[in-house]
Amino acid sequence: MDHHSPSLLAALAAVVGDAHVLTGAQDTAPYVAEWRGHYPGIARAVVRPASTAQVSRVVRLCADAGVPLVPQGGNTGLVGGSTPDDSGREIVISLGRMTALRRVDPLDNSITLEAGCKVLAAQQAALECGRLFPLSLASEGSATIGGILSTNAGGEQVLRYGNTRDLTLGLEVVLADGRVLDALTTLRKDNTGYDLKQLFIGAEGTLGIVTAAAFKLYAQPRRTVTGWVALPHPQAAVEILAMLTDAVGERVTAFELLGREALDQVLAHPLDGMRDPLGGGYPWAVLFDVSETSASLDPSGAVEEVLGQALERGLASDAALAASGRQAQEFWSLREHVPEAQRLQGPSLKHDISVAVSAIPAFIEAADTALRAAMPGIRIVCFGHVGDGNLHYNQSKPLGMEDAAFRARAPEIHDIVHGIAAGMQGSISAEHGIGRLKQDAFMRHKSPVALDLMARIKVALDPDGVFNPGRVLPLARRTALGGTP
Amino acid sequence: MDHHSPSLLAALAAVVGDAHVLTGAQDTAPYVAEWRGHYPGIARAVVRPASTAQVSRVVRLCADAGVPLVPQGGNTGLVGGSTPDDSGREIVISLGRMTALRRVDPLDNSITLEAGCKVLAAQQAALECGRLFPLSLASEGSATIGGILSTNAGGEQVLRYGNTRDLTLGLEVVLADGRVLDALTTLRKDNTGYDLKQLFIGAEGTLGIVTAAAFKLYAQPRRTVTGWVALPHPQAAVEILAMLTDAVGERVTAFELLGREALDQVLAHPLDGMRDPLGGGYPWAVLFDVSETSASLDPSGAVEEVLGQALERGLASDAALAASGRQAQEFWSLREHVPEAQRLQGPSLKHDISVAVSAIPAFIEAADTALRAAMPGIRIVCFGHVGDGNLHYNQSKPLGMEDAAFRARAPEIHDIVHGIAAGMQGSISAEHGIGRLKQDAFMRHKSPVALDLMARIKVALDPDGVFNPGRVLPLARRTALGGTP
Repeated sequence: MDHHSPSLLAALAAVVGDAHVLTGAQDTAPYVAEWRGHYPGIARAVVRPASTAQVSRVVRLCADAGVPLVPQGGNTGLVGGSTPDDSGREIVISLGRMTALRRVDPLDNSITLEAGCKVLAAQQAALECGRLFPLSLASEGSATIGGILSTNAGGEQVLRYGNTRDLTLGLEVVLADGRVLDALTTLRKDNTGYDLKQLFIGAEGTLGIVTAAAFKLYAQPRRTVTGWVALPHPQAAVEILAMLTDAVGERVTAFELLGREALDQVLAHPLDGMRDPLGGGYPWAVLFDVSETSASLDPSGAVEEVLGQALERGLASDAALAASGRQAQEFWSLREHVPEAQRLQGPSLKHDISVAVSAIPAFIEAADTALRAAMPGIRIVCFGHVGDGNLHYNQSKPLGMEDAAFRARAPEIHDIVHGIAAGMQGSISAEHGIGRLKQDAFMRHKSPVALDLMARIKVALDPDGVFNPGRVLPLARRTALGGTP
Repeated sequence: MDHHSPSLLAALAAVVGDAHVLTGAQDTAPYVAEWRGHYPGIARAVVRPASTAQVSRVVRLCADAGVPLVPQGGNTGLVGGSTPDDSGREIVISLGRMTALRRVDPLDNSITLEAGCKVLAAQQAALECGRLFPLSLASEGSATIGGILSTNAGGEQVLRYGNTRDLTLGLEVVLADGRVLDALTTLRKDNTGYDLKQLFIGAEGTLGIVTAAAFKLYAQPRRTVTGWVALPHPQAAVEILAMLTDAVGERVTAFELLGREALDQVLAHPLDGMRDPLGGGYPWAVLFDVSETSASLDPSGAVEEVLGQALERGLASDAALAASGRQAQEFWSLREHVPEAQRLQGPSLKHDISVAVSAIPAFIEAADTALRAAMPGIRIVCFGHVGDGNLHYNQSKPLGMEDAAFRARAPEIHDIVHGIAAGMQGSISAEHGIGRLKQDAFMRHKSPVALDLMARIKVALDPDGVFNPGRVLPLARRTALGGTP
């Protein structure tokens, strides 16, 4: 196919402009590896269309030439889903120039914007009309609308507002043959046939290229009660969550668990002002936000009552409510500093699992036991969105172990953790997707029936494998099943 | 194919038991026509499996014999999606015996139950453990879990809790070849490949048979503020909704609009105790519920403040809050009595449209004007879930017109209303689905790209057309595209 290349690139340049077909190593560098430098690849070119019509023409040209396209947003992914492989065959299609805010409507509680818009820009546009765009994640200054849709991103407020999928009202998508699916409505109800937009959310760019989207907006919270609670065990976290939900309903906006090792690592490398809100000595902590949108109602009393009951019932050994926005920030900075603190401890193994919320304690018990048996002294850095049943269940090497020896045992450790999650009907990738990184575990733990249906969907929508081939479903798998539906 | 029939029925009886393969006219009568008597058809048999394994074997037998299956829940649908055609070829598969409550977990805020369970039973099971199953609709005593999933039912609390799709965590589905897709988790987050369960929600039984499902549960509301507001025009409803949302956020649980004609028809045939809460004379009314889950917080003050502002700004001419649960019931009975009151006025034409919430006033203006031009004197019965952008925009004949003359013009009236909704990016079926009733309008107003994708999905999942053939997508359409993906 390489003989097509010069004329293909010329044709692409005719569509998007010479300046937006990048081929030099320096120009393409930001697009061919993930932001942490992982998954370095080689792109035949990086193409930067400025409109849906241009995306459509780019897709048609590449489909006709049999050249695969790798859609890319802010390139903040973690699983190798948005960068080219090392074949030099793939063309990266970056949506970064498509940043129009098409419409924001406070009466309709909706916002419609293009795929290249940053998440932060969506939040700001909503705020300017007195509404909340509730998706919030660490990478929000770089992550784009197209990226959060393609990965069904979660983040810090899923408990209250849901994942990206739950926030999505409509999509505009360029299909594998260049046609445009216009499902860009802001309707709250529409039962006319299959809900096609669902197919493209979380598909990691393998079924279509999202060019624009409409999302729900919410009321802005007027006040937030942030609390830090010391707990004897993870079961207490699950029970306090239920008590809080009972008392203040959907106002529980975030509910995060932190294990002692995670806290110790953070406090071993404190940034300025970081300290344990409760003086330390307890095995587990919960950090929560309860937010209230009504100016005239204050949930603090109800929250304090729950904490009082938790102390009485032995579910908590101590608790503090942030006395100011600044103190709330300090509580949260402890949580947010965990990944960086763990990095300073040397190599780490990471898992992004989910189980039913009520199964969190059993998961931790089983996984801790199995890992300590497999590797005495292993340090378990357990934290995450327990309100969503989602743990970042990570490991640091035992003190004194060689880095290489620890890394060599990664497959075994991953297998233990994923096997326990899967055995509890859990997920081996709650937030981050499959991409290339988790494909082996995905193929091993997903049911053959589910994998077969996914392959059928892929063939039905992208029969020639134009979009992000080999991501999510491996190439061989897709080809093997290509003819069956 | 008819020569297969006796041996097929015997094989089915061997799976589900003789008593559960119904063939006599009297036995099959409740299954072969909709509850209002519409869509009378003829079933080769009605099969009533008792387990997922039995459903799987029934599907395999029918698929092998080339006999189509019509899945049926509570048979409360409105669009001819759940009853057999008049060919006598189709077998109805009723899920009514599968009523197990598999699990309810207040810590996980989830409930898992079989497809034949009634919606009311789900509500009661949730209530018994202190939680809310929030889907609520007029037919909840008969409608089943499988039915609300297959139609993505909405109902009275969509504004706060979403449609059935939004409440669904996991599904178990029997596929067209009899295999079982086990996606019956209660995970809040799972980004491992395509979200297959979405395909079966709202698919009206054309892609698979849902045998069990897991749903989110919520906190039970502790108190509800119910209000009735007199308005000068529909725009005021949209603005008051925004003000209420601003003041009390997601606590706005229901927000219904009623036009004068709807109220007049209800009050022309009042049930005992029914009267206008505000004495009448205003052109539009809004009925709303604001519900609070916290025992220690009372949103009444915030609601009263909003109503005061609305009166001041001329958005409302009068308003009343229900002083008791009984009075709240009386307010709601006016709303719920509209369909029956309209029936007493003679023949009616019905539409279940949706547009963006902010576009509701423009829709009403445009549709009223077009209908009055087409048929002077037509009585427009406009009411519905304005908070969801969903109107039941119905018509009664002009006083003095012959029934037959009015009915003869139904296609023209439908076209006008659907055309205006579609022209505003709206939906011609917000809640009720397509089935057979709305297929013509669906084919006319849905984009060809969307229809093509739906046909590809149908072929990918049910290549031989075993499930509910001719519903949603017409047979001819599917066949014409059958080979293309």
